[in-house]
Amino acid sequence: MSDINWKLVHDTAIEWTSEAGQYIRSKMKESFSVSTKAHQDDLVTDVDKAVEDFFKNKIVETFPNHRLMGEEGSYESVKDLEGIVWILDPIDGTVNFVHQESFFAISIGIFHEGIGMVGIVYDVMRDELFTSIKGNGAYINGNQIKPLTKTSLNESILSFNHGWVLKDRRLEELVKEARAIRCYGSAALEIAYVAAGRLDAYISFNLAPWDFAGGSVILKEVGGLATNYEGKELTFLDKDTFIAANPSIHHDIFERFLK
Amino acid sequence: MSDINWKLVHDTAIEWTSEAGQYIRSKMKESFSVSTKAHQDDLVTDVDKAVEDFFKNKIVETFPNHRLMGEEGSYESVKDLEGIVWILDPIDGTVNFVHQESFFAISIGIFHEGIGMVGIVYDVMRDELFTSIKGNGAYINGNQIKPLTKTSLNESILSFNHGWVLKDRRLEELVKEARAIRCYGSAALEIAYVAAGRLDAYISFNLAPWDFAGGSVILKEVGGLATNYEGKELTFLDKDTFIAANPSIHHDIFERFLK
Repeated sequence: MSDINWKLVHDTAIEWTSEAGQYIRSKMKESFSVSTKAHQDDLVTDVDKAVEDFFKNKIVETFPNHRLMGEEGSYESVKDLEGIVWILDPIDGTVNFVHQESFFAISIGIFHEGIGMVGIVYDVMRDELFTSIKGNGAYINGNQIKPLTKTSLNESILSFNHGWVLKDRRLEELVKEARAIRCYGSAALEIAYVAAGRLDAYISFNLAPWDFAGGSVILKEVGGLATNYEGKELTFLDKDTFIAANPSIHHDIFERFLK
Repeated sequence: MSDINWKLVHDTAIEWTSEAGQYIRSKMKESFSVSTKAHQDDLVTDVDKAVEDFFKNKIVETFPNHRLMGEEGSYESVKDLEGIVWILDPIDGTVNFVHQESFFAISIGIFHEGIGMVGIVYDVMRDELFTSIKGNGAYINGNQIKPLTKTSLNESILSFNHGWVLKDRRLEELVKEARAIRCYGSAALEIAYVAAGRLDAYISFNLAPWDFAGGSVILKEVGGLATNYEGKELTFLDKDTFIAANPSIHHDIFERFLK
């Protein structure tokens, strides 16, 4: 398996992502003309499943020895990361998809024997594509992202849900210390924003592998760190707490606030 | 003054906004090549002032009887809304401008004898332009926005800073009751998002007229409401508390949570 052409896998995954994005945008337009909130809720289910099926069929056809772990039903069958596994969220940011018709992403992490090799996060409506191949840096729409530079908590912008503050009051200290807090409602995009330097950390109490796989692979390419609240490596097999951060504040955040 | 051609004022304001946006994007590119955080902080001051001066000169030249109330120094001279007043924020979302190089806006509200006639909010990096003329509806990039439809708090997406929750614990109840909370860090954009139906309400403890003038004028055109925490009309002359909302939840929010 050492002679795998990761560039080919990467390019193929991007091609399919682009095709899936086009499909989602066309479905959005259809729904606009008949739209009610109820229809929109139905739409997300339909589109989620259709996009996951699309990837499933493409993978079986093109890379028959690759497996798919997806949010919509393909999860149960994948209990380990042996060989090559695609971890897919067909639509990350479901509430945004339904309600805002923007700020959601297709997220893909492709793993080889447990190691993230290819990362893709695609902001469908903004047409902004974050990509990486292990060892080759990270890119936004083909432009290389600079490695993350040193920062400190009081000049950082962090991102997490307001609701987490109510569940763990230690986050209030972060609200006070950080320069600003944001919340966009799509884990995949928010992790990609950490990679792009738009955010310095993204924190969540509860994420699934498909929420953070694509973003975490991309983040690593610019020197960012993604772990759980204990600072331990993610398994990419189970739900976990999650912190993605600029390396200069990652330790500070989990040591002082989350551990 | 009753024969003022508001379409002309509107079109002219859009033309200047577009030109200012181009200038800001070019400055961003320059700064990228020498960029450090310190330089970026200087940049915002320079660009803010340059954009405000640009509008000031254009207004004096083209509409000599109009006055300008801007964040950068033109504020002191405007103490009333007699005649025609442009209320301008050259860059709304300064932290985002410096840190994210996106998610900031040029915001303009043009008032006639205290009444909002023209609203403009321009997301410079995304090239997304929200506009309105009183009585003629609101638009995104020229496409008319539908009037806001009925919603309820438990299916709403609200937006406010995490920090406000620490200052007024009543907001915690909103976090629990709403479907989701977001925070983007640009009041002007967030009010425009309420107009666009992407958010159902935007709340702030402390905003200046230039933060909310443009967005509030646009919001009115789709049936949205903008008031202070007591539900009272904004003066557009002083800093105030602020809530912009879908009309079906506006009363509920300030009566139950903010009053």
